[in-house]
Amino acid sequence: MDKLRSWNDGPAKRAIIDFVSAVTDRKGPHYVRPADRLAVFDNDGTLWSERPAYFQLLFAVDRVRALAPEHPEWSTTQPYQAILENDLETLAGLGTHALGEIVAATHTGMTTDEFAEIVMQWIETARHPYTGRPYTEMIFQPMLELLRYLRRHGFATYIVSGGGIEFMRPWTQRIYGIPAQQVIGTSIETRYEIRDGVPVLTRLPEINHVDDKEGKPVGINRYIGQRPIMAFGNSDGDQQMLQWTDAGDGLHFCGLVHHTDAEREYAYDRGAHIGGLDKAWDEALERGWTIVDMEKDWRWIHSWNLDQA
Amino acid sequence: MDKLRSWNDGPAKRAIIDFVSAVTDRKGPHYVRPADRLAVFDNDGTLWSERPAYFQLLFAVDRVRALAPEHPEWSTTQPYQAILENDLETLAGLGTHALGEIVAATHTGMTTDEFAEIVMQWIETARHPYTGRPYTEMIFQPMLELLRYLRRHGFATYIVSGGGIEFMRPWTQRIYGIPAQQVIGTSIETRYEIRDGVPVLTRLPEINHVDDKEGKPVGINRYIGQRPIMAFGNSDGDQQMLQWTDAGDGLHFCGLVHHTDAEREYAYDRGAHIGGLDKAWDEALERGWTIVDMEKDWRWIHSWNLDQA
Repeated sequence: MDKLRSWNDGPAKRAIIDFVSAVTDRKGPHYVRPADRLAVFDNDGTLWSERPAYFQLLFAVDRVRALAPEHPEWSTTQPYQAILENDLETLAGLGTHALGEIVAATHTGMTTDEFAEIVMQWIETARHPYTGRPYTEMIFQPMLELLRYLRRHGFATYIVSGGGIEFMRPWTQRIYGIPAQQVIGTSIETRYEIRDGVPVLTRLPEINHVDDKEGKPVGINRYIGQRPIMAFGNSDGDQQMLQWTDAGDGLHFCGLVHHTDAEREYAYDRGAHIGGLDKAWDEALERGWTIVDMEKDWRWIHSWNLDQA
Repeated sequence: MDKLRSWNDGPAKRAIIDFVSAVTDRKGPHYVRPADRLAVFDNDGTLWSERPAYFQLLFAVDRVRALAPEHPEWSTTQPYQAILENDLETLAGLGTHALGEIVAATHTGMTTDEFAEIVMQWIETARHPYTGRPYTEMIFQPMLELLRYLRRHGFATYIVSGGGIEFMRPWTQRIYGIPAQQVIGTSIETRYEIRDGVPVLTRLPEINHVDDKEGKPVGINRYIGQRPIMAFGNSDGDQQMLQWTDAGDGLHFCGLVHHTDAEREYAYDRGAHIGGLDKAWDEALERGWTIVDMEKDWRWIHSWNLDQA
């Protein structure tokens, strides 16, 4: 039964269904046993929106504002000044490494448990600046259906994101149905220590792994230890993950979400300073990766479009 | 049905069965849903033997010998000289960090795929120096039964070892029934690059994570992102992993394999330079962790004892 209800009939949906049919057909030449049915998904721009800025950056912005009274020096120091002055454009141009630095600078000293609580409180209360919706409603309904469709067909679905691993893990099970151990992301160092007789892991301002571009196949190998047969991204940050998947033996699927829908979401690709799609697009055209045209291929973008329909 | 056939009836076996019964009893006060039934196991000395030296060290020894003709300088440089002169005692005293260095120094430059092949070839052909058995037959039969018993009761079984993650992953599925993504260990950095048009991950002589002592809870948090409810180790290197598990809410189980059987395996604990059990033993006694006495609690140590019985 076709559960990809939010996908229009078209080449992208067809390619997905054909691929899943082929690798699950026990008698076919492309059969893949369930243990090897690994699918990896970028998060920002692939599973949920990344505009007006990476949502983790908006989380960091809220954290800087919340902590600003304790840090008077921030009002004249970048990048804090830009945050406190609401200069999102300056911030957005800083890239993943800078995001990691801001996160480290504003999110350290507490334990991993305390941080998970801060994230959960934010994700449950914060609202997207343009739509006024909770961030968890900014996920793409067709991709959620795809995750479920794959799991129903014996796939393990992983997130492989440039975003912070501990920023995602507290809510991915509830929102995407993906457990913590199937979330790979950028990570910082932690230190084990006993505080008042209780073992804790303290978050340190030191990067352990940047899970972007070349870091994505490195992260896949480090965490999963096996090559995926399906990968989905939306920007040049996903190019190496797609190459890595494309280089596997046997049938595999490489997909790119193309943000073409200025009316229902956003339209951007080459030259965009968030989620730029340039080299990965060229390679997709050259290698025949599947390009999902949001405007044409997706019947609804978000679950609330569906409510309104 | 009791499948822990290699365990003698006694307090250790009783404690395991009582714990598993309690967390799987839907109507009981200690019920844990399957998604949270995470059990972590040390490898060296817990799932397989660690004498006369860590098996990965013996693998490194074999690699040094195989590569020595290309490195004439090794005959007068430590730690290579000790290896080439078969001075295992000197080597064994160097500890996990030094092991990591030797591994890095003798195992880099090749791709991750090439390294996996080297490991597989070794594990299929090398023999334990005392027993003449393949190393994969040096696993502890009672622990193999415990892994299977736990999985039959809905647990996910993880390895959390000071050993190299990519030294273990090629064979853990076949030997322990544990897939690559449930193996956590010491890891080195890798670099993504395109060689002759093919994407590869090259192994670098740089440590990413030392999965020993304080590094074990750090690794558990990094890879699993959830606290285990069961942990099993055998030495002071496992103390922090056991503390971390013991600090969880709800019912949990902490176990230590005590090497008490000089006749069928080895007998060592306090002061041993491999697998020393000292502080973790004190803490086990203080906190009531389960101590498995190999001589008393295990009917057979290895599967081939069972053949001989």
